[in-house]
Amino acid sequence: MQDKGFLMIPGPTPVPESVLLSMARHPIGHRTKDFSAVMEDVTEKLRWLHQTKGDVLTLATSGTGAMEASIVSALSPGDKVLVLVNGKFGDRWAKMAKAFQCEVTVLSEEWGKAIDPEQVKEALATPGTYKAVIITHSETSTAVINNLEPIAGYIQSHGALSIVDAVTSLGATQVPMDDWGLDFVATGSQKGYMMPPGLGFVGVSAKGWEAVEKSTMPRFFFDLLKYRKSLKDASTPFTPAINLIYALQIALGMMQQEGLENIFARHHRHKGAVRAGASALGLANYVAEDKAAAPAVTAILPPEGVSADKMRGIIKKRYDIALAGGQDQLKDKIFRVGHLGFVCDRDVLTVLAAVEGALRELGHDVAPGAGVAAALKLLD
Amino acid sequence: MQDKGFLMIPGPTPVPESVLLSMARHPIGHRTKDFSAVMEDVTEKLRWLHQTKGDVLTLATSGTGAMEASIVSALSPGDKVLVLVNGKFGDRWAKMAKAFQCEVTVLSEEWGKAIDPEQVKEALATPGTYKAVIITHSETSTAVINNLEPIAGYIQSHGALSIVDAVTSLGATQVPMDDWGLDFVATGSQKGYMMPPGLGFVGVSAKGWEAVEKSTMPRFFFDLLKYRKSLKDASTPFTPAINLIYALQIALGMMQQEGLENIFARHHRHKGAVRAGASALGLANYVAEDKAAAPAVTAILPPEGVSADKMRGIIKKRYDIALAGGQDQLKDKIFRVGHLGFVCDRDVLTVLAAVEGALRELGHDVAPGAGVAAALKLLD
Repeated sequence: MQDKGFLMIPGPTPVPESVLLSMARHPIGHRTKDFSAVMEDVTEKLRWLHQTKGDVLTLATSGTGAMEASIVSALSPGDKVLVLVNGKFGDRWAKMAKAFQCEVTVLSEEWGKAIDPEQVKEALATPGTYKAVIITHSETSTAVINNLEPIAGYIQSHGALSIVDAVTSLGATQVPMDDWGLDFVATGSQKGYMMPPGLGFVGVSAKGWEAVEKSTMPRFFFDLLKYRKSLKDASTPFTPAINLIYALQIALGMMQQEGLENIFARHHRHKGAVRAGASALGLANYVAEDKAAAPAVTAILPPEGVSADKMRGIIKKRYDIALAGGQDQLKDKIFRVGHLGFVCDRDVLTVLAAVEGALRELGHDVAPGAGVAAALKLLD
Repeated sequence: MQDKGFLMIPGPTPVPESVLLSMARHPIGHRTKDFSAVMEDVTEKLRWLHQTKGDVLTLATSGTGAMEASIVSALSPGDKVLVLVNGKFGDRWAKMAKAFQCEVTVLSEEWGKAIDPEQVKEALATPGTYKAVIITHSETSTAVINNLEPIAGYIQSHGALSIVDAVTSLGATQVPMDDWGLDFVATGSQKGYMMPPGLGFVGVSAKGWEAVEKSTMPRFFFDLLKYRKSLKDASTPFTPAINLIYALQIALGMMQQEGLENIFARHHRHKGAVRAGASALGLANYVAEDKAAAPAVTAILPPEGVSADKMRGIIKKRYDIALAGGQDQLKDKIFRVGHLGFVCDRDVLTVLAAVEGALRELGHDVAPGAGVAAALKLLD
């Protein structure tokens, strides 16, 4: 039905009306006091979201750009880097670090499973081996969340920098920069931020800045030193994406009103409800372990012999809900339900009802209403 | 007056209501047929705007990012590059090329004057000396337009690549990529495109692609090969700024409706009217030569002893018009009137009336209505 499409993919995520409308305002000059007031406000709110007293920088780029800014600002060519890989994004960061001539060691885990912190501990047994460890907190491609807190501890003990892809974890679950001692935290706007894509963010610790000051990596647009310098005047070194920053201001205000703990609890409940609902419909969760399941997105296996993309197609056509497919080796094998950002209980019930409808249309016997019932129980 | 502010700076430029409202739509998934249809449409329109049969790529970045994508994709570390510098932006590209370890030679001209094509010819006398020449077509900081057509010819004869900052020339005057044999043309959305900032564009010639394929510069987000590969499927390698691409589609449609020749003629008339109006008010144009004056922006000197920023302050406060100041050594020495993008005759008359008002408020004798009258004559 025209204009009825609803996004339940892990990004872009649904955007509140007030955030959408804020973008329809005329841009203002970005070298003005009015714009500096906006930058000051969003920067303070970003600190709150990152749970840090340090800097959080806003770039006109995507989440991948935010990761590149972290890598090229933190590292120098030839630096030894350990990259933890259990999905498509971890794999991308290994490729990126190699592209910038870092010496990359990959610690990989099977797709669908979380990285074992003990293996990381072991890989970091000899202090000083690595300059940095790159980790994908929530691996969007497989719907797995890695156990960042102990891993961050091992990275600190090793004396390395942590470079964290928190693209689908920030705003969905705990990523307390200061408490966990994270050095670079990279995110993108179309995720937990409840706004459209086009902004990237990088949180940087004091230890992170020391590394940036010493790094010799050739860089310009992604040079975080330039952003830090401009931020002192509540400005940006290059033209900011002004209308997206309007959206950011409104969205962060809504997040503050809800409160971090409430936001995290909501994501946790939704993850549980989707997983329980899928099970009740006789579908297996691709991520077997509950604690390894990401709070932002759930990967579900279709019944044996059924194409995941065919199920998604039915759900799109009949119920106007967009779900995500599998990527690379998971193509057509799983479908992914995003429950990230601006998602309420109603949305979770709806998607389970739609999955039931698709199963029926495909001739699969399901206990009527079982998915919704299981979710309702968990949401109570 | 609240919400009455009007932008007459060289970027961000005024945005049509339909473009603003298009951004207030929900994002759609960017890995869908619906989004590919949008990308196909905007890419075809971008080819029209660039007057090329080649590729034009859309990046989630600023104009500076588009220039970086050109430089890091075209060149390799150690490449010899000639950078033409007659203002702040030319200076920035020299710094950028140095940051990426190119061997940079600067050919500079006094601020406020255009680069002499004969000097470029001379600098390029020995074929094969330089791998590329970087040129700022319209130098926004000084309101000077460089004479690109003959310079592009000399660059071709030399066998070098041309990397053109067309940020405030594309959509204001002729930048026919194919006719002039331009290899890389970089722009940003908040200029002639009549939309907010956040998108960067790079047009690439066939000769440009040959260089990109051979370049060894470390790069990832700004690797144009990745964008070309994705564009074959009407997609992008990294999450695109979806809502800004909605805006782009509407804005380019409006530009096509007006027609390139009409758009260029409008900018030419407005430039002439602002210059004539300023003269009639007894103010000197900072760019003395008419043909060196940019069609996007006019730099005006205040009466002797008067602060340019004070004049801008009055114009902002009394008439709700934002003008741009001078940068670096021109700070407080000039004010710049943008007439780029979504600007009509009314806007040009208004700004001259406001300048007259500010002069009167500062106690300067001016022939009543002289600026408006001179402009009206020229606009007829």
